[in-house]
Order: sequence, then C-alpha cells, then structure tokens
Amino acid sequence: MTDPADFSQSPPQPSVSGSLDEFSLIRRYFHHRQGGSVVLGPGDDGALLTPPADQQLVMTQDTSLVDRHFPADMAPADVGYRCLAVNISDLAAMGATPLWFLLSLTLPEVEADWLAGFSRGLFELADQAGISLVGGDITRGPLSVSIQATGAVPPGLALRRDGARAGDQICVGGVTGAGLLGLEQWQAGQRHGPAVGHFRRPRPQWELGMALRGQASACIDISDGVLADLNHILQASGELGACLDEAALPDDPSVLAGCSVDKQRALQLQGGDDYLLLFTLPPSKPVPQGSYCLGRIEAQPGMRLRQRDGAVRTLTVTGWQHF
Amino acid sequence: MTDPADFSQSPPQPSVSGSLDEFSLIRRYFHHRQGGSVVLGPGDDGALLTPPADQQLVMTQDTSLVDRHFPADMAPADVGYRCLAVNISDLAAMGATPLWFLLSLTLPEVEADWLAGFSRGLFELADQAGISLVGGDITRGPLSVSIQATGAVPPGLALRRDGARAGDQICVGGVTGAGLLGLEQWQAGQRHGPAVGHFRRPRPQWELGMALRGQASACIDISDGVLADLNHILQASGELGACLDEAALPDDPSVLAGCSVDKQRALQLQGGDDYLLLFTLPPSKPVPQGSYCLGRIEAQPGMRLRQRDGAVRTLTVTGWQHF
Repeated sequence: MTDPADFSQSPPQPSVSGSLDEFSLIRRYFHHRQGGSVVLGPGDDGALLTPPADQQLVMTQDTSLVDRHFPADMAPADVGYRCLAVNISDLAAMGATPLWFLLSLTLPEVEADWLAGFSRGLFELADQAGISLVGGDITRGPLSVSIQATGAVPPGLALRRDGARAGDQICVGGVTGAGLLGLEQWQAGQRHGPAVGHFRRPRPQWELGMALRGQASACIDISDGVLADLNHILQASGELGACLDEAALPDDPSVLAGCSVDKQRALQLQGGDDYLLLFTLPPSKPVPQGSYCLGRIEAQPGMRLRQRDGAVRTLTVTGWQHF
Repeated sequence: MTDPADFSQSPPQPSVSGSLDEFSLIRRYFHHRQGGSVVLGPGDDGALLTPPADQQLVMTQDTSLVDRHFPADMAPADVGYRCLAVNISDLAAMGATPLWFLLSLTLPEVEADWLAGFSRGLFELADQAGISLVGGDITRGPLSVSIQATGAVPPGLALRRDGARAGDQICVGGVTGAGLLGLEQWQAGQRHGPAVGHFRRPRPQWELGMALRGQASACIDISDGVLADLNHILQASGELGACLDEAALPDDPSVLAGCSVDKQRALQLQGGDDYLLLFTLPPSKPVPQGSYCLGRIEAQPGMRLRQRDGAVRTLTVTGWQHF
C-alpha cells in the first residue's frame, strides 16, 4: 500500500530501489510547455494557477478504462489524444476556452514506449487546444486514464442544456455517425479509413463552442448519439419536443459509403462517440458554417422524424447505454 | 464500449434498459448542498464556478485503488472519507482554502448500501472542510476513486516546497507514525484503537495550512514519512540538509504504546500515510500550538539525528516506496 507517485515528487534517493527510472520516465514524457497562467506546474503538492480575471470557470472530469472506453490494442498516441478529447469536448459544450488539465494515469507497468506514444498524442491535442497539463499522479493498476479539465467563459455566457425554446433550430457541428461506424469497423479488424480515424481521434469543437457564446440557446456534446443527447436538452429545457427532418440529416458519402440507407440513418441518429456539438439556435440566428440544421424544437413533447415522403414518424431514444 | 455515465446526465428513457435505478442512486447519494461559488453543479457537461476574486487557485488530483491505497474490507464510509482526505491534505500543504472537488468513481457494480456509506463518509469530511462536489462521473470497472480538488490562496502566499533556508525550524503538525502503525494493525486484523482510527480517517490540516500563509518558508504533507518528505523540501530548496533532535520527536503514548523504542523511532521518522503538515519556519517565528519543532535546516547536505546521548547519526531516506 503506497501513496500515488504524483508528478510532483522529487526523484527518490538511490536507497529507494527501482524507482528512479520510473520517475525519470515520468519527468521525460510529461514535462511540457505551459501557458502563462501556470504559476507553478508539476513539482509541488498542487499546481498554482492564476485564473483569468472576471471569468467563470468550467470544470469536467472523465475516466476512460481500457476495453471499456478504448480498445486494448489502440495505439498509445491515440489513447492519449482520445482521453483528452472527451474532456475538451465537455468544455466545448459549455462554450469554455480550454485552460488546464490534470491527469491521473493508472498503468499495469511502466513502459517507456507506451508512455512516449501516449504523451505524444496527448500533447498533440493539448497544444492545438492551448490547454496545459498542470498536475496529476501515476499509480500501478489496471490501465485507466482519468482527466480533469478546466476552461474559462465570460460570466453569463456559458452554454447550458436548459435554454432551448420552442421554435429554435436544432443544429449539429458536423456529420454524425462516424464515431460508431469507426468503432464497428475497428472491432471488425479495420485500422484505417475516415470513420476509424474519427473513432481514434475525435476532434473536439472548442472553437465552435466559443463562437456559440451569446448565440446558442442550449448546447451539449454528442457522446450518446443525436437522439439521446437531444433528449437531454429537451428534458433540461422543460419537457419540450423536437421534430427532425430526414432530408436535412447531413451525410458524408466518403464516410458512410457502403452502408444501407437504414444503417446510415441509425448511425446518424443513434451513433455515439461523435463528440460533435449539438445545439439549438433561436430562429433568427444564422447556422454557423460547417454546421447543419436538423429540425426544430417544438412545444409538444417527444421526438419525431419528418420522412422524405412527408410522413411524420415518432422516434424513441435508443442511444448509448450508460454504465 | 460506452461513454462514462457522468453525474450530469438526465435519467435515460425507459427504453434504455436497466439504467434508471443506477442513475437514481447516483442522484440520491451524490446531490448535496454546495457553496455560493457554484453557479451550476452536476447536471450539465461541466460545472460552472465563480472563482474568488483576486485569488490564485491550487489544484491537485489523486487516484486511490482498492488493495493498493485502501483495503478491500474497509468500510465504504471510511473509503469515501479517506480518498477525499488525501486530496484536501495536498490543498492544505499549499495553504489553500478548500473550494470544489470532482469525483471519478469506478465501481465493479452499483450497490446502494456501498454508495450510501461512501457518500456519507465523503460528505462528512467535505462539510467539515467546506468543499463542494461539483461534478465527475461513474464508470463500471475495478474499484477506484479519482478525486480532483481545487482551493484558493491569496497571490504570493501559497506554501511551496522550495523556500526552506539554513537555520529554519523543522516543524510537524502533530504526532507522526500513527498512519503506518494503523495500517500494520489493520493488516493484523485489528479494527479499533487510535492508530487504526488515524489510518481509516486521517484528518487533513487545512486550517493549519491557512494559518501558515506568510509564516512558513516551506511546507509539504506527510504521505511518505518525515524523512522522505523532508527530503523533498531539502531537494526543492537547493540541496540543503537537516538535523533532527531525537528528544524532540513528539510522542503519543496512547498511540504508540506497546512498541519498542526502535519501532517508535521508525514509525515517527519513516511512517507514511500520516497526512500531517511538515513545514519550515524562520527562526523568529513561533511554533503554532499543536505543532512540534523537530530540528533545524542546515547548509550541510544530508539528514542527521542528534541522539539523546548527544551523538549525531547520519540518516538515510527510507520512506514509502512509490509506485
């Protein structure tokens, strides 16, 4: 029974056998440039940070387990990228500017190659998003990655789930379905292609989230599928309903090629792991470039799909099952 | 492969089989009163928080695994208390006022009794320390508890490891050794007594940490034992040394009763899991009530013990081994 070996520790003395190399590896792979708000990063009992003046903070934490949230044979660089991506996606859904994250890494053993790959993928996305690793710990145990991320947003401008109103446009920040299709292809042994690429490295939409401040009436990121996540917005906003337009569902032939029409529809509406933003816009607001309007919020509860033939079909929520 | 079921989710629809009760349990056991700085707690993609004006933030994250950081047969209330305590202790070591925490809980199965106990112990300490649970997630897997905690400190007043100077007094916030002794007694089947009590529920010293702002030149919390953690201060402060006074080592006969003198010395100097503050004070500063001065920082590197007979013995660091 030992205390977690946090990044902050000085190297143990030589009399503590066998640990020196492990600490050296940690220092080698997890020391990285940091933003100016970081007064003191890894190296003490906690990080010391200067929050941006007159901003609110957004905080999220997600744990990813091997064989549950990512496959055991996924490249470590993709694991690092993906585990950070799901947290940045939560910041994006709140309209927050990414600032800092802490990493709790549980590893069955310390392998230099694995750590090198993991940290490379992790920092590739961290640098793109401008988010700094400021602390955390490493523990020996079954592979799991727990990341806590913090962002900033001007007071009153955070995007929430509870602001949708009847008549609002329902929008999505890209073409949905690639996440689940990529997972299915991965499980079938495929290791390349656009859907697998999206599954391995979902690109969180923090720029879109920031652009939606003061524009969107509600926002969520798609981790459970369009229907399930839209339902979260409907419930939070007060038992509203929605009607989606089948003809408006965005399609990317290069991704969904080879799927039947029914399969495409299921992927688009019920596929999880997309990590795109799903948001509502008042009727007067223009849909941002790269986003699509799928339908409208309605006062009548329930979800409906207006088919291409004009008939309206009732939808049930059958997204990802949690836990 | 599912996304983590974060606290923020609305209950799934009845069509998602078997999840409703689990989400109800989460809401039942983890919704709790929050401080005024919490604009939006669990219930969205992230928490929305107002940081205290003109303060710096301190952040820490620690993961506790069953059979590694706590015994599998420890009462769930003690697990909840203890996992939060190790994080608050890190805030205390930085002199921070506890504010918020996020909880990533990985559970092999959802048991109402376990969750009820865990949350009771967790919130017992959270209420004492004035820290609010603002988010996190629950995932199915091997039992582990990852907590990220944030505190606040006035700019420039955070306690760090790197400020000790030759001549400073070396102080500790209580009697050391009970943590390791309690663990040993637990492993021998004992379930009661003061040492076991300290092992089950170490009381983090956040009030002492706050009182040491502007007073202590360096501070750390004792997770690895006095010698190992003092060595972290010595290394961070620039290759300094220390001389401890055997006659000054604090003793609590009710805790260490029955141990030989050698065993008491080993527990006092090398026992981990105490979560007391170890700090240095300039010579002019009075030692706070309840704390003890163990010796002095010296310019000569290395650690020495002045024995009761006046002889000075060289000490080696043999604290907890990490990872």
